[in-house]
Amino acid sequence: MVDLTALHNHSLFGGITEDQIARIKDFFILEEYGEGDFIEREGETGDRIYFIIEGQVEILKKITETGKLSRIFMFSEGDVFGEMELIDVQPCAASVRALRPTTALTLSNKGLHQISQYDLKVFSLMIMNLARDISRRLRKADDIIALCPELNKLKE
Amino acid sequence: MVDLTALHNHSLFGGITEDQIARIKDFFILEEYGEGDFIEREGETGDRIYFIIEGQVEILKKITETGKLSRIFMFSEGDVFGEMELIDVQPCAASVRALRPTTALTLSNKGLHQISQYDLKVFSLMIMNLARDISRRLRKADDIIALCPELNKLKE
Repeated sequence: MVDLTALHNHSLFGGITEDQIARIKDFFILEEYGEGDFIEREGETGDRIYFIIEGQVEILKKITETGKLSRIFMFSEGDVFGEMELIDVQPCAASVRALRPTTALTLSNKGLHQISQYDLKVFSLMIMNLARDISRRLRKADDIIALCPELNKLKE
Repeated sequence: MVDLTALHNHSLFGGITEDQIARIKDFFILEEYGEGDFIEREGETGDRIYFIIEGQVEILKKITETGKLSRIFMFSEGDVFGEMELIDVQPCAASVRALRPTTALTLSNKGLHQISQYDLKVFSLMIMNLARDISRRLRKADDIIALCPELNKLKE
C-alpha cells in the first residue's frame, strides 16, 4: 500500500485534491535503495520522477575533463528529482546515489501518459506545476551562470 | 491579421494541428519594437511569451556586484523567450533589448488560461511541449554549471 501523504504537499500536486491524487495512486510505484546504491546513472536512459519519502541522495555530474563525479545537489525527504526524465525520456542528465537508505515514490513517463488518458484535467495541472518547478530551477541556474562571464560564453 | 506561419513549426505546437492553432489565434497579439527598445526589463513583472517573427534581440542580466548588464543570449527569427513568465507570472529573470527592428507574436499568461478553458487538450499539449523546452534549457545550464566547481557550491 503506497502512502500518498508525501505527495499531498508537493508542488507537483498544487491545485489537485486528495481525492484526485488517490484516484491516480496506482500509476505510482514505491522503490527502496540501500546506502551507496546508484538510483540513476548519468547517460543511461531515465524515464521517471522520484519523490523521496525517506532518506537522502546526492546528484552527481561527471566532469568531462577529469571524469570525476562532482556533486551538484543533495536531496532528502520531501525533495523530488527526475522531473526532466518524466516528461522527456532521454539519457539521465546526472547520476543519483543514495547517501543513506532511501525510499522513493516513482512515476514513469508511461504512467504519466496513462494519467493523461485517465484524467486530462489532473494531467494538465501536474504538467503545469512541473513546468513551473523546472522553470524556477532554470531561473536559479541562469542566475548562477550570469555571475560568471566566462561560462556565459558557452551558452551562445 | 496575425500570420501564424511562425508558430506551426515551433516546438511549443508539437502535436497540435494547423487547424487547432488557427482556432486559438485570437489569444495571440502581434507586437513591434524599434532598435534599442527594451521589450522586457529584469525585475519588472513579466507575464508573456514572445515568438520572434522578424528581427533580433539580446537577453541581458544585471551583474549584482557591478550593476552592469551581461549578455547571456541572442535570439532571432524562430526563437522564443518568456516561456518562464508565461507559466509563472513574476519579475522577469532578465532584460530583453531589440538589436534591430523586431516583430513578435506574444501570448500572455491570461491568454494561456483562456486557452485552457477553450481547449484543454491543446492547452495540455502546449504545456507539455513548453515543459520539455524549459527542461532542455535547464539540462544545458546544469552542464555549464557542472564545468565550474565553484559555481556548484552556490547551488547547495
